[in-house]
Amino acid sequence: MSKAEQFLPNFLSHREVTKELASKIGEEDYNFKPTETSMSAKTLVTHMLHSFYNFATIVKTGNPSAMVRKLEDTETNLSELADKYTTLTIETIKSITDEELAREIDMTKFLGIKCTGRQLLRLALDHEINHKGNLFVYVRMLGHTDLPMFVKK
Amino acid sequence: MSKAEQFLPNFLSHREVTKELASKIGEEDYNFKPTETSMSAKTLVTHMLHSFYNFATIVKTGNPSAMVRKLEDTETNLSELADKYTTLTIETIKSITDEELAREIDMTKFLGIKCTGRQLLRLALDHEINHKGNLFVYVRMLGHTDLPMFVKK
Repeated sequence: MSKAEQFLPNFLSHREVTKELASKIGEEDYNFKPTETSMSAKTLVTHMLHSFYNFATIVKTGNPSAMVRKLEDTETNLSELADKYTTLTIETIKSITDEELAREIDMTKFLGIKCTGRQLLRLALDHEINHKGNLFVYVRMLGHTDLPMFVKK
Repeated sequence: MSKAEQFLPNFLSHREVTKELASKIGEEDYNFKPTETSMSAKTLVTHMLHSFYNFATIVKTGNPSAMVRKLEDTETNLSELADKYTTLTIETIKSITDEELAREIDMTKFLGIKCTGRQLLRLALDHEINHKGNLFVYVRMLGHTDLPMFVKK
């Protein structure tokens, strides 16, 4: 098993919670924002799904430009979108070789740092956990009180 | 340098953001909650500070009972509280030997898992990032729009 594949359970222990929270948001609430300057619920979830897939693609290809790749979706339902990008992200992570994971990537233009593929995958997960933390507040504000733990065992 | 000391910059890259967010919350807003069932701003920040210190103590001692340790504070200001627990947590992490970091700890009673000290420190950081993600929404709801990145470089 590659080192990147060993990272998969870690990714899924958080992504499964993201999916559960997303599934609680009714389509009538997709435009909900806690404040005027916040991302809407739909924009927030979409940003999380796109970002992890883009980060994983950068680790696979070594090319930082996927950071600003615009992904076009026909899915309008957040759970369907989450399923699609979770599958794409799993496939991409599975394809990352140990050499690609250890490769240094120059993310200066976008993040102000150079880092290895492994560090970038970790940053991708931290990014997901951060925004999932936002999402918990959104979902509670939408009236849900029966919420999962922040990480699945 | 011990392996636990190498973890310190990682801890501080998130804790510094926690401190910056906490400093934006005026004492008149300490009881603010986004919803009736949410933790108040003060309870949330205090929970983050106590939890990381407790997790680090468990890794140091190998004794999971610090998970439910009740910490008593005389500080009423969140920034002072954050400084106090950041110092205590740094000291504790610095004192963790490589053997303690590799030791398996039975967290079954509290978390349903057994894990190494290293894994528990990582969980402590994920816990901080998750609640910091909550805190970003709180602080934005309190009227702040000039917010830091979720992680300090």
